[in-house]
Amino acid sequence: MREQFRQDLAEITRELVEMTFAVGSAINRATQALLDSDLELAESVIAGDVAVDATAAEIDARCFDLAARQQPVAADLRVVMSGIRISMSIERMGDLAKHVAKQTRLRYPKSSIPNELRGVFAQMGALAEAIANAAGLLMDTEQLDVLSTIGRYDDQMDALHRELFSTVLSPSWPHGVEEAIDVTLLSRYYERYADHAVTVARRMTHVTTGEPYEAITIDADPNQAELA
Amino acid sequence: MREQFRQDLAEITRELVEMTFAVGSAINRATQALLDSDLELAESVIAGDVAVDATAAEIDARCFDLAARQQPVAADLRVVMSGIRISMSIERMGDLAKHVAKQTRLRYPKSSIPNELRGVFAQMGALAEAIANAAGLLMDTEQLDVLSTIGRYDDQMDALHRELFSTVLSPSWPHGVEEAIDVTLLSRYYERYADHAVTVARRMTHVTTGEPYEAITIDADPNQAELA
Repeated sequence: MREQFRQDLAEITRELVEMTFAVGSAINRATQALLDSDLELAESVIAGDVAVDATAAEIDARCFDLAARQQPVAADLRVVMSGIRISMSIERMGDLAKHVAKQTRLRYPKSSIPNELRGVFAQMGALAEAIANAAGLLMDTEQLDVLSTIGRYDDQMDALHRELFSTVLSPSWPHGVEEAIDVTLLSRYYERYADHAVTVARRMTHVTTGEPYEAITIDADPNQAELA
Repeated sequence: MREQFRQDLAEITRELVEMTFAVGSAINRATQALLDSDLELAESVIAGDVAVDATAAEIDARCFDLAARQQPVAADLRVVMSGIRISMSIERMGDLAKHVAKQTRLRYPKSSIPNELRGVFAQMGALAEAIANAAGLLMDTEQLDVLSTIGRYDDQMDALHRELFSTVLSPSWPHGVEEAIDVTLLSRYYERYADHAVTVARRMTHVTTGEPYEAITIDADPNQAELA
């Protein structure tokens, strides 16, 4: 019974990890579509989100099935419950990648971002994919030293988000209000994407250490190199 | 056993209904704080969100406990699983009310919204509270005729959101980029709030009718009067 429980849990974790890599790929492709005004690629990201949602629903069902069959208590119950919460956060990351793709489609064939901000969005896209992959790695390996990497990526994302705000609000902003709103919303999608990855990491820490979820903070390692 | 299951489920539903009314009250107070630049009220909304999150966590635990003790299958399992998904949507509504309150705090003592948009935001606030209350009523009574009301409120919210976009993007917009971004983000919070209420309504329909969640759409009744 106990062995079966472990096996079922490993299977759920495997699905969560795959789902995380899938939304990492989605934000990468959404960013590419944004930078290149590539409608076809944007459409494929939008269409692909259905599969992410389906996986989330399947993980929910597996977690409940496991709870019903094995009647876990205490720590084991905490693990199974966290599975559903984690799947919802990853699902939201997928939604945010879809939002980026939809913005690309909305302005097509125009670009949603002015040329001088391409670099910022390329960095945000790279950070978003990297934080998703780090969260996937954390779930796969339970190596809690990945946490400080996740914290660092999140800090870098927040810094880019703030930088973009100052650019848009500077008196020398040469574009209009529509462009300002577009890039602000886009930037917010990336920032929220990273926040959800942090939530995943906090939930995983809760599962691994048993620490109360609310008390867990993810801090950046000050000695770590910045992502290029 | 069966009777116990029904009782436990009724208890979970009661908590979900209360949580829905709580986030309805939160968006009402957040809107009031926004309109009056009332910092104290904004702070109370921000502080109050902790209780909403705690209720969501408690509902999760109850659902899992129920699944473990009663091992429901088929329709019953669907109901218990939906409880967690619904609690997460309501929790997100609470987060969005908090976002509105935080925006108020960010600009205090200045107002986040120009005078001529006060009416739009007052309407958005009223609609948001009304849609939350309708979702609560739906859960409480399982009367599916509330659905068309929810659909109507959501349509009205979307129309206000679009109207606000046109105002901000019109060449005659007399304010700056910062004001444009503030009101756009705020408007998005209200629109997302209503979307989550629609998600709650769709999940409830799924629970009540057994229809696949993905197939459920909430449409407005074209004969219904608009909310004042």
